[in-house]
Amino acid sequence: MGRQGNDGKRPSLHFWFDFASTYSYLSAMQIETVAADRGVMVVWHPFLLGPIFRKQGWETSPFNLMPAKGRYMWRDMERQCEVFGLPLVRPDPFPQNSLLAARVAHAARAEPWIGAFVRAVFYAEFGAGLDISDPSIIAGILLDVGADAAAALAKAETMDVKIGLRAAVSEAETQGVFGAPTFISGRGELFWGHDRLEQALDDALVLSD
Amino acid sequence: MGRQGNDGKRPSLHFWFDFASTYSYLSAMQIETVAADRGVMVVWHPFLLGPIFRKQGWETSPFNLMPAKGRYMWRDMERQCEVFGLPLVRPDPFPQNSLLAARVAHAARAEPWIGAFVRAVFYAEFGAGLDISDPSIIAGILLDVGADAAAALAKAETMDVKIGLRAAVSEAETQGVFGAPTFISGRGELFWGHDRLEQALDDALVLSD
Repeated sequence: MGRQGNDGKRPSLHFWFDFASTYSYLSAMQIETVAADRGVMVVWHPFLLGPIFRKQGWETSPFNLMPAKGRYMWRDMERQCEVFGLPLVRPDPFPQNSLLAARVAHAARAEPWIGAFVRAVFYAEFGAGLDISDPSIIAGILLDVGADAAAALAKAETMDVKIGLRAAVSEAETQGVFGAPTFISGRGELFWGHDRLEQALDDALVLSD
Repeated sequence: MGRQGNDGKRPSLHFWFDFASTYSYLSAMQIETVAADRGVMVVWHPFLLGPIFRKQGWETSPFNLMPAKGRYMWRDMERQCEVFGLPLVRPDPFPQNSLLAARVAHAARAEPWIGAFVRAVFYAEFGAGLDISDPSIIAGILLDVGADAAAALAKAETMDVKIGLRAAVSEAETQGVFGAPTFISGRGELFWGHDRLEQALDDALVLSD
């Protein structure tokens, strides 16, 4: 159980997300605002579900492998997006290839514009139906959030970042992450799914003994 | 989209559950009370997830097949049971064989004591750690809820009930059920998981046009 964030430091919540994940979209669009309202700092953990799913023998999203579950997920997403006032377009193909966006976000995870970048990528994908594997789309988003697009894209292609993102996937597995979004509180409690965001924030505020 | 329950009739919510399902326990213990508070009638649909899971190639619960997801589910159940003030004992073995309980409940689905029976079975299993495949346990529960235990058990073993429960599993699949608990409103909206119970009740109250 990692102890972080409550020993005189600001409470924090670790947010593990994959840019290809539908329910991560719901969390990504809201988490920084709702966390800030409660004095909780978001620690951004972009990662890839693909390698974790492949270990289960799944070559694509379980929503594609299980048609009834997939149909339900899209209807549920329509309803949840309506509740939260978010647009919803089905990406084509689904899931999108999230590798480039994940590398850029991993490299930029401590930048002041990381939250804006994450939201803009999710919005481009699920709100506007854009292809997030296209470097020109990612470059445009970087410019929009005030980043040095050329530098951020170049950094994303360095060996350090490629290896760093792979290490993040391993860290996710070690911490018990099996899906996205996942929230891990400072005292090590894991919460899976957007439906648990409020409970995860509550837990982030619990003082460890 | 089946239209039921809102054309001058009392609004209803169809509750699909498997007695072996952990999250069905959370819903089963609360649904009749929260639905009654809102003027919604519960329609009880005991069924079996096993045949649906086997079509996915799963020979046991996905919580057993995916250890990280299984570990998470038990921790999440501990937390949710604490929130709802419910006891939690891990059944051994998990999942329990729910066939007998499902047959009894299917045969008794329109009896006035069905809600009490369903709650008592879930409580025996997840609150007291009893073996719900044991006819003497089920007989004791039937007596507790004021049923004719011998008659209810005899009826559960008739060919009509055995075939009726199989037909219920087929109906679940036809309606798009892939897990439990599942709620289906009168106008045919499907909601999966205890986290969607409130939203499902809201939908049960929407007047169809």
